Amino acid sequence: MADSCRIPQARALLQQCLHARLQVRPAEGDAESQWVEVQRGLVIYVCFFKGANKELLPKMVNTLLNVKLSEAENGKHVSILDLPGNVLIIPQATLGGRVKGRNMQYHSNSGKEEGLELYSQFVTLCEKELAANSKCVEAGVVVEHGTYGNRQVLKLDTNGPYTHLIEF
Amino acid sequence: MADSCRIPQARALLQQCLHARLQVRPAEGDAESQWVEVQRGLVIYVCFFKGANKELLPKMVNTLLNVKLSEAENGKHVSILDLPGNVLIIPQATLGGRVKGRNMQYHSNSGKEEGLELYSQFVTLCEKELAANSKCVEAGVVVEHGTYGNRQVLKLDTNGPYTHLIEF
Repeated sequence: MADSCRIPQARALLQQCLHARLQVRPAEGDAESQWVEVQRGLVIYVCFFKGANKELLPKMVNTLLNVKLSEAENGKHVSILDLPGNVLIIPQATLGGRVKGRNMQYHSNSGKEEGLELYSQFVTLCEKELAANSKCVEAGVVVEHGTYGNRQVLKLDTNGPYTHLIEF
Repeated sequence: MADSCRIPQARALLQQCLHARLQVRPAEGDAESQWVEVQRGLVIYVCFFKGANKELLPKMVNTLLNVKLSEAENGKHVSILDLPGNVLIIPQATLGGRVKGRNMQYHSNSGKEEGLELYSQFVTLCEKELAANSKCVEAGVVVEHGTYGNRQVLKLDTNGPYTHLIEF
């Protein structure tokens, strides 16, 4: 783990789900809350740090969509593209926090605007990757994503989240 | 983030839940699967690395149970002890993985036996901490935990997981 000396530009947490529901718009007045959901998918919680460069994004997308962490019918692990499965991207700036005493500090997090820009581009690149993959297109798998800045109200059903952390 | 140069001894991922159910024993023959569940609690996924020293554990417990990440009725963040809330500890060795190409490697993880020993002691220390806290005892909050080595089949309902990472 010697190269963890480098301050990361981004942090991604991956979990495997049978089903996930994420609120993308809270209830307001008469309008009900709005949700997205995925079946049999990869949940990617993502956070960007100060100084993160958008040139990082294609590499992030390539790594996260090709890493072999999804369980196929035969028990072997394949990428989410090869499964093929759905992807749920959740903005999770809290992942950038660092504990100090009893509090968390978020000094290394990207600014709000930079974070939104990077997050939006990350989502778009993931969508493009799935759209360019014939196996995914045939299976009709999709990328859903949370609304940056909102409370990420999440319901998760798993057969084991198989949680992994990848830094960039 | 300069001191991330130090190889961690342990990694903990924290999520806030409204309700969580975790399988602690899979179905076998005629015996049904067994589950534990917590309401309104802190989920701690934990992983130990090679060379982790048991002297680390009291500090880990102190930090994780006192960090102010749980949302009180008034919207402020308090520790799980102060909420007071339940704790669900999930062994998650996968958190120790490091990506190499399309695969994850777990070279830095503790051995199976050392990991079990550290995990068991960690759970015990958390139980003791809650049992020694009068607010927790009065409220009847508990520590539940997963079975080390099993598939951690988890169902999670949140009002936002508010995911945080803490390394030791």
